[in-house]
Amino acid sequence: MTQTYISEIAKHLGEEVTIKGWLYNKRSSGKLGFLEIRDGSGMIQGVVSKKDVSDETWENSEKVTQESSIIVGGVPREHPKRPGVYEMDISRLEVVSIAQEYPITPKEHGVEFLMDHRHLWLRSRRQHAILRVRHEIIKAVRDFFDNNGFTLCDTPIFTPAACEGTTTLFEVDYFDEKAYLTQSGQLYNEATAAAFGKVYCFGPTFRAEKSKTRRHLTEFWMVEPEVAYAKLDDVMSLAEQFISYIVARVLENRKDELAQLERDTGKLESIVPPFPRLQYDEAVKILQEGHAKGEIEHQFEWGGDLGSPDETYLSGRYDKPVMVHRYPAAVKAFYMEPDPERPDLALCVDVLAPEGYGEVIGGGERSSSLEYLLKQIKAHDLPEEAFGWYLDLRKYGSVPHGGFGMGIERAVSWICGLEHVRETIPFPRMLNRLKP
Amino acid sequence: MTQTYISEIAKHLGEEVTIKGWLYNKRSSGKLGFLEIRDGSGMIQGVVSKKDVSDETWENSEKVTQESSIIVGGVPREHPKRPGVYEMDISRLEVVSIAQEYPITPKEHGVEFLMDHRHLWLRSRRQHAILRVRHEIIKAVRDFFDNNGFTLCDTPIFTPAACEGTTTLFEVDYFDEKAYLTQSGQLYNEATAAAFGKVYCFGPTFRAEKSKTRRHLTEFWMVEPEVAYAKLDDVMSLAEQFISYIVARVLENRKDELAQLERDTGKLESIVPPFPRLQYDEAVKILQEGHAKGEIEHQFEWGGDLGSPDETYLSGRYDKPVMVHRYPAAVKAFYMEPDPERPDLALCVDVLAPEGYGEVIGGGERSSSLEYLLKQIKAHDLPEEAFGWYLDLRKYGSVPHGGFGMGIERAVSWICGLEHVRETIPFPRMLNRLKP
Repeated sequence: MTQTYISEIAKHLGEEVTIKGWLYNKRSSGKLGFLEIRDGSGMIQGVVSKKDVSDETWENSEKVTQESSIIVGGVPREHPKRPGVYEMDISRLEVVSIAQEYPITPKEHGVEFLMDHRHLWLRSRRQHAILRVRHEIIKAVRDFFDNNGFTLCDTPIFTPAACEGTTTLFEVDYFDEKAYLTQSGQLYNEATAAAFGKVYCFGPTFRAEKSKTRRHLTEFWMVEPEVAYAKLDDVMSLAEQFISYIVARVLENRKDELAQLERDTGKLESIVPPFPRLQYDEAVKILQEGHAKGEIEHQFEWGGDLGSPDETYLSGRYDKPVMVHRYPAAVKAFYMEPDPERPDLALCVDVLAPEGYGEVIGGGERSSSLEYLLKQIKAHDLPEEAFGWYLDLRKYGSVPHGGFGMGIERAVSWICGLEHVRETIPFPRMLNRLKP
Repeated sequence: MTQTYISEIAKHLGEEVTIKGWLYNKRSSGKLGFLEIRDGSGMIQGVVSKKDVSDETWENSEKVTQESSIIVGGVPREHPKRPGVYEMDISRLEVVSIAQEYPITPKEHGVEFLMDHRHLWLRSRRQHAILRVRHEIIKAVRDFFDNNGFTLCDTPIFTPAACEGTTTLFEVDYFDEKAYLTQSGQLYNEATAAAFGKVYCFGPTFRAEKSKTRRHLTEFWMVEPEVAYAKLDDVMSLAEQFISYIVARVLENRKDELAQLERDTGKLESIVPPFPRLQYDEAVKILQEGHAKGEIEHQFEWGGDLGSPDETYLSGRYDKPVMVHRYPAAVKAFYMEPDPERPDLALCVDVLAPEGYGEVIGGGERSSSLEYLLKQIKAHDLPEEAFGWYLDLRKYGSVPHGGFGMGIERAVSWICGLEHVRETIPFPRMLNRLKP
């Protein structure tokens, strides 16, 4: 009684197979039962006819409830009118466990209810589609870097010092010390890039942000490549190649899932290099003109960081992600390389996804100058001794280098066309959400 | 001046190329300089001849120090006597940054000194070899599951409740609550396996163990597959297929690195299925006979868990990993399925790596019975309400299921033949080691 997975059913048409799964849905018309069966790999409709099966199998088909676990034998065949769709004539049905009354029914449920039942909600068609796209994106991310000469160098979760201020850090008692959960592997990536040339890290990242928005999780996965000898233009080229590759992989391998999510794939098909590159100065002009035309409410002043409405307005002008570069150094992190032609600007880039999804990538060139970094650490009131090892990278063979970070959940949200990141990870963690 | 990576040099023999990297080592004989250059992708020897280059290039070659960053132009060629080894005649040498006196020299350094300079130590040949094997193992792990119908379902790092006691948990202030860093994704895997059939999680895992041994890190990466409808025998088959696959991948793709580490690859070549399966009862007999023969110091009593010397003795009898199954239920976790024929035994398995490396995999079948789990939760004094969602999995379509966990660092340590896990991860975290 070897198990056949529903995803493999097309290879077994006309053969007797055994499916081990769960009842997703059921309807019956007297002497015929129609059972929608799922096994995690897919779904198939099984047809049971009272006259063709044993009394036991018929009774089992009558008593099974939604989400009961069942083992079903029968012969799969193609649907007479729908090519590529398969059905199965059930010859035997064994009940493994009858489910109690299932809390998630086809009726509408509130989000909090579904989130409280996340462990069960994951069984639904829509959640399957999203998490399969997530899986594909993660695999594509790794394949992209692995196939392009990058070495995976996992960076630590426990860090002794703060990368960008301590207000959004989670603190941990680490024996007799304090440790903080990582907000970014970048500083460590700079060390491994000096060792391996091209590196990436990819792991969970933590921000203790009190914001309750559709774009924030306290625990999210981030991939961060870093390249020795890379300048800002190289970082931008890498970012556009990278994003285009993962979108193409999802389009190629996850058609059914995108269809299930009713994603407009036309919008994803236009994601190919080159992406528009927009200097911050030009972005400010566009925002100010938008205000003059009454298209944006507030007047944007040169010098500020872009807010959500600004990003939405800018990215709405393009059918591809737009790369906004050279922000004022004052609004960016201390380690950014200043533009030699305009030292008030940082050689940084944010990539804004279209359709209002906003920033999916942030990165740039890091300063390779020991003197400049020492000055910046002082100016930002950071403890110099905590950065001793980081400064060593400028003492021993400093090189220009750069990279970026992409949050996986925001990428999944955009590529799936979701309204909220909470569905992009199996067990989301947010302010007020630590369970299940 | 496009950059050519040393790993690609064989494709550019006889052409003028530019290498961007660092000076690893240097010797000179008056009018000839021999520069060992690394660029992260590999190493190459460059030869500079005073009579053939500009004064500037010659002076640069004289002044560069160990780990200075340099850009080198020249024509690579095969070594006249060593096929597969490449050299380069240097025509120009530009200094990017002169390194200060490098702390890590060819002389012997103590382990604590090297660990304090981990950010620089990573540039050495040996550390490159280990971390490239680590990368290969991680890729092989993911490929194995991705190619066998498993869905990646990342499990949360922040967890509200303790899986196996709280003494080795790291506690975090999570806004107004307490959270704990995950020790295992298994309970969550059981939920996702009921949704997707075959799943795995793969991420960092935390144990606040005060032990200072060669096998312990406080932060380590663990991969955990879980399969719905799997019984103990299926779990054991999966484990032996899995381990054999990753060892074969390393042997195939990381020959040079294993040679660098002077690994006896003959010992890895024998890692093929099937692995010996040894019931705990038999293991006890072997240990007791070993004691009688004077080969183990202490007398092992039925009922205890295996200690390090026991594992070493048992695994020393085989040239493959040995799978010890059916331990006393009392020494295993509360959720283990009891053996129906001997309810005092748990349907669990530990896989012990050969050459004294000990446990690399622990797993088994999980109980699918609501009644049994309720009894166990009471017997173990665990808070039932914290396990509400976990118990739901037994109310709604419970099925037999099982899986295992493998710690990546122990696997890397074994496959590389290392003495200590501290070299198997870029920035190890241990008791007393939170930096750099």
